[in-house]
Amino acid sequence: MTILESIREPRDLKALDGAKLDELADEIREFLVRAVARTGGHLGPNLGVVELTIALHRVFDSPVDRLLWDTGHQAYVHKLLTGRQDFSKLRGKGGLSGYPSREESEHDVIENSHASTALGWADGLAKARDLRGGDEHVVAVIGDGALTGGMAWEALNNIAAAKDRPLIVVVNDNERSYAPTIGGLAGHLSTLRTTDGYERFLEWGKDVLRHTPVIGPPLYGSLHGAKKGFKDFIAPQGMFEDLGLKYVGPVDGHDIAAVEAALRSAKRFHGPVLVHCLTQKGHGYGPALEDEADHFHAVGAMDPLTCEPLTPAAGPSWTSVFGEAIAEIGAERPDVVALTAAMLHPVGLTRFAERFPDRVWDVGIAEQHAAVCAAGLATGGLHPVVAVYATFLNRAFDQLLMDVALHRCGVTFVLDRAGVTGTDGPSHNGMWDLSVLQAVPGLRIAAPRDPAQLRSQLREAVDVRDAPTLVRFPKEQAGPAVPAVGRVGGMDVLRRPDGRPEVLLVAVGVMAAVCLGAAELLAERGIGCTVVDPRWVKPVDERLAPLAATHRLVAVVEDNVRSGGVGWAVGQALRDAGTDVPLRTFGIPEQFLAHAKRGEVLADIGLTPVEIAGRISAALAGKENDA
Amino acid sequence: MTILESIREPRDLKALDGAKLDELADEIREFLVRAVARTGGHLGPNLGVVELTIALHRVFDSPVDRLLWDTGHQAYVHKLLTGRQDFSKLRGKGGLSGYPSREESEHDVIENSHASTALGWADGLAKARDLRGGDEHVVAVIGDGALTGGMAWEALNNIAAAKDRPLIVVVNDNERSYAPTIGGLAGHLSTLRTTDGYERFLEWGKDVLRHTPVIGPPLYGSLHGAKKGFKDFIAPQGMFEDLGLKYVGPVDGHDIAAVEAALRSAKRFHGPVLVHCLTQKGHGYGPALEDEADHFHAVGAMDPLTCEPLTPAAGPSWTSVFGEAIAEIGAERPDVVALTAAMLHPVGLTRFAERFPDRVWDVGIAEQHAAVCAAGLATGGLHPVVAVYATFLNRAFDQLLMDVALHRCGVTFVLDRAGVTGTDGPSHNGMWDLSVLQAVPGLRIAAPRDPAQLRSQLREAVDVRDAPTLVRFPKEQAGPAVPAVGRVGGMDVLRRPDGRPEVLLVAVGVMAAVCLGAAELLAERGIGCTVVDPRWVKPVDERLAPLAATHRLVAVVEDNVRSGGVGWAVGQALRDAGTDVPLRTFGIPEQFLAHAKRGEVLADIGLTPVEIAGRISAALAGKENDA
Repeated sequence: MTILESIREPRDLKALDGAKLDELADEIREFLVRAVARTGGHLGPNLGVVELTIALHRVFDSPVDRLLWDTGHQAYVHKLLTGRQDFSKLRGKGGLSGYPSREESEHDVIENSHASTALGWADGLAKARDLRGGDEHVVAVIGDGALTGGMAWEALNNIAAAKDRPLIVVVNDNERSYAPTIGGLAGHLSTLRTTDGYERFLEWGKDVLRHTPVIGPPLYGSLHGAKKGFKDFIAPQGMFEDLGLKYVGPVDGHDIAAVEAALRSAKRFHGPVLVHCLTQKGHGYGPALEDEADHFHAVGAMDPLTCEPLTPAAGPSWTSVFGEAIAEIGAERPDVVALTAAMLHPVGLTRFAERFPDRVWDVGIAEQHAAVCAAGLATGGLHPVVAVYATFLNRAFDQLLMDVALHRCGVTFVLDRAGVTGTDGPSHNGMWDLSVLQAVPGLRIAAPRDPAQLRSQLREAVDVRDAPTLVRFPKEQAGPAVPAVGRVGGMDVLRRPDGRPEVLLVAVGVMAAVCLGAAELLAERGIGCTVVDPRWVKPVDERLAPLAATHRLVAVVEDNVRSGGVGWAVGQALRDAGTDVPLRTFGIPEQFLAHAKRGEVLADIGLTPVEIAGRISAALAGKENDA
Repeated sequence: MTILESIREPRDLKALDGAKLDELADEIREFLVRAVARTGGHLGPNLGVVELTIALHRVFDSPVDRLLWDTGHQAYVHKLLTGRQDFSKLRGKGGLSGYPSREESEHDVIENSHASTALGWADGLAKARDLRGGDEHVVAVIGDGALTGGMAWEALNNIAAAKDRPLIVVVNDNERSYAPTIGGLAGHLSTLRTTDGYERFLEWGKDVLRHTPVIGPPLYGSLHGAKKGFKDFIAPQGMFEDLGLKYVGPVDGHDIAAVEAALRSAKRFHGPVLVHCLTQKGHGYGPALEDEADHFHAVGAMDPLTCEPLTPAAGPSWTSVFGEAIAEIGAERPDVVALTAAMLHPVGLTRFAERFPDRVWDVGIAEQHAAVCAAGLATGGLHPVVAVYATFLNRAFDQLLMDVALHRCGVTFVLDRAGVTGTDGPSHNGMWDLSVLQAVPGLRIAAPRDPAQLRSQLREAVDVRDAPTLVRFPKEQAGPAVPAVGRVGGMDVLRRPDGRPEVLLVAVGVMAAVCLGAAELLAERGIGCTVVDPRWVKPVDERLAPLAATHRLVAVVEDNVRSGGVGWAVGQALRDAGTDVPLRTFGIPEQFLAHAKRGEVLADIGLTPVEIAGRISAALAGKENDA
């Protein structure tokens, strides 16, 4: 039995001595590389927090003490130490979630995986504890990257205001330029930080920090390594001191004893305290450390030695199609600039950045700022393209509405990973945008059905100068081309019925293939279907209602939550035209979706040709409530 | 002709000497008190920036140089100096907007009035300028309160990253504990800040600041004066220095020459620089200075001497009904706590705070944090009530979805000023919530139609322990009680038809009165109407579809943008029940609404009994497209 296998719950850690703990850390790293290589998942972040997590569970008593993992993708070690060692179906249907999950364990408190929230949670939990008269500890672990999000700042401002409310913020600072000597040197310092000698050491500590590589070059000058330069605000503890937070560190995050000492010191302090922990993303795994572009942040299933993917991608990804298209547009249009929120490579801006390094900005994990800055850029005469994952745009709704749309700015939002994303679980599905954005005046939304459409619609989008535009596409590989057989208004007709048209299927984006499949099945039952791809789903094409009026039933199929989506908008368009033809809408039900593969999720929620064809048949027969 | 009248455009200011400028400042103050007393509007903030605005327009060349007013309610002086001196219809239909307005003047750049955005705009405008090779100055004026918003932090982090990109941030620090000596003393210092002697003075300057009242007591200990304690982060310039921003100040914001000197110094600096300006809200107007609760921030029409309102309120306001109700609930339920985003008094939490001072927190202008902190409080065993203006909830959508709803937290959001608010213009209408929130799983939304309903629905809301709830009500005075004549499911029946039921009118909240009026008109034409108030508008009551099936037409009337609202949700509920009875939805069109009185706006967009009855008649007659 390995040491890891002997750890059934966190208290089992407390009996281990230093040598055993180091051995455990090695076992965990080996486990992580092996397990994550098999299923895919977040690798680098978890390799970076092995010692930190062991120390946290030795110093604090979870679940009585509350351990909060910001963003949550670095909670694998925490899972291993809290009775969850079966990683065989990690992120798969029925397997462990890739994030904390309250269903899985009482040791998990927050399970969302949007960054920068843990400090706000900690503030609330600590306030509640004090009102209740409890004495448990509240500990939030947050990465240096997540501190670029404004919410973290809002929370720090509130946390610092209560000087006598104990709360521990652990900053997991895994910047690449990490220098082990700093950690070691400052590790000794750290025990002094919350004790009497503190003030004396403060100035010297600052000086040490200011002359080390921990303070990196400004991020925005260089596009290399998305987090460089955030050190500018995390490293100088003067800033936290000004806010009123006690500062402990920097401490070497791979030295269990040093981290424990810092945490015990923080635990004794009767007020908010920040522990600055220097770690190395990918620590102990050569390929991750050697990779500058941070590909090992999250990986697909791969060979752990060669790092080759186990199942090579079939065809280009949507992301790469966008990446090529935007670089082409950039070459023709010097006014086109790009913004990313700490995801330059994942959203496909690598090539654009290489060709036009002075026309791309990584704003940090700060979607709000991306949107507002884009409004400024547009007002200044440029055409910004804001590329984010669909789920993260929710953070910038107000800014899209008030700064971009109200000011009629020509800004193009590009949403990668729209629709069901699957294995990342409930917080990463890009299933909200088509609903939330319906109310934004002037906004035009494109949902391309295939790569050719993405290329052409992206061009149409950046040609709009006086209103926001948005182009959304899903995760993973783009399917084959879906040819049009005709055009009605701005809509592509994908299929015409053989005989009398009975059903009009409105296919949103990649749902085109599903709709064509459903139409085929309906045709076999003698029900004639027209299938259209509206291309621009907001506003609804004015030719849709007249077309609908020539059918017995309209069905809208979208890869978005049904509530508030395109189906509802089509309903309004029909009513406004006085067209009371029956409508049925197919989409994601109004619920959070558990993690599973995209295809599994789509099948579970009935977004398949068979299911859709069956329900349409039932509706036509007036039998839909018989089930 | 007064000096003010002689100022037709900013350049006219440049010919004036110091004495004339002081005279002009006096004239402006007198003008502001007189004009705002007549129409209502933002008074305190504008009285505080008279000298600052004069100095800005003397040092910079608007509109070539870009002056950005964060939040925008302090732009009255700017309007007066840029050719807009007719304040007779301020905030009224056809009159000047209460905020910057690009339609009004080329001197206005950003017109939204949601806080903390100006720095992001400045970042974008400065980046665009540099790419274009322009040389205009970009100057953002932001209040100390708005710096508590996370977006300001995100922007500062980005601004500071470009050390050679000129950009000026003026912090208008109008905290009440303003001490004139500091400003005077530091005014001399300020000219040195961006010159060679800078480093030498830095430590001394910090020391001076740390021993002055500018650094106030922590906000959250005291509920007095919503902005106290924000000084904890604004005053110590060390923080901005750590971020990499040059700091100029503090400077006395009521000394035109001192402010000009600071601005000229900042203008010469080839990088981002922050000018810290100390001003006094309400400066020069006794009643404003003596009022601790900051009632003069914004006022209704009043007698400028007695400060008595010109038209006394008719009956209690919605805000006061909520304020009493939540205080009563607080007395019975020790677990109920309240959160406000820098608006303790305006959202009606005054009484609650007086009675339960340890159970209310003002988190700053930080709606995101309010929602996340609430999730933590709920998880910690309390029931938080987050009270905000409806328009500002848009800022916390992602947090409501991911932190509150995904975690099934019992948190009650209370939205004041929902629906058409009118005179504040496009950014303050609370017309988005019923659309944006439709996609949030598990959320329950109440729209009370009268004060009694607000009281009872608020109680129902805080009784829900495992899901978020939301209660929305409009601005201004609550109307008379609207009695129910029956009940179907959870819905109140407000009117039954005399004869055969033909139209089912679904009234959302205060639209009950409008619906009853429309029903009356329809009855006169022999069309029998049922009027129901669903009370909880999300989820749609399961008894609505069967009820609808007994009518020829369903009409939903809501004080929310039609796109994505309750009308659309009712459509889905009907379809899901297989009920294809025709539906018509009445609400706010998908556009930004210009400022005017609430009643005027409602009439303009057709939310009146006459208009609704007319359109329903036409629909029944199949003639709705004849117009």
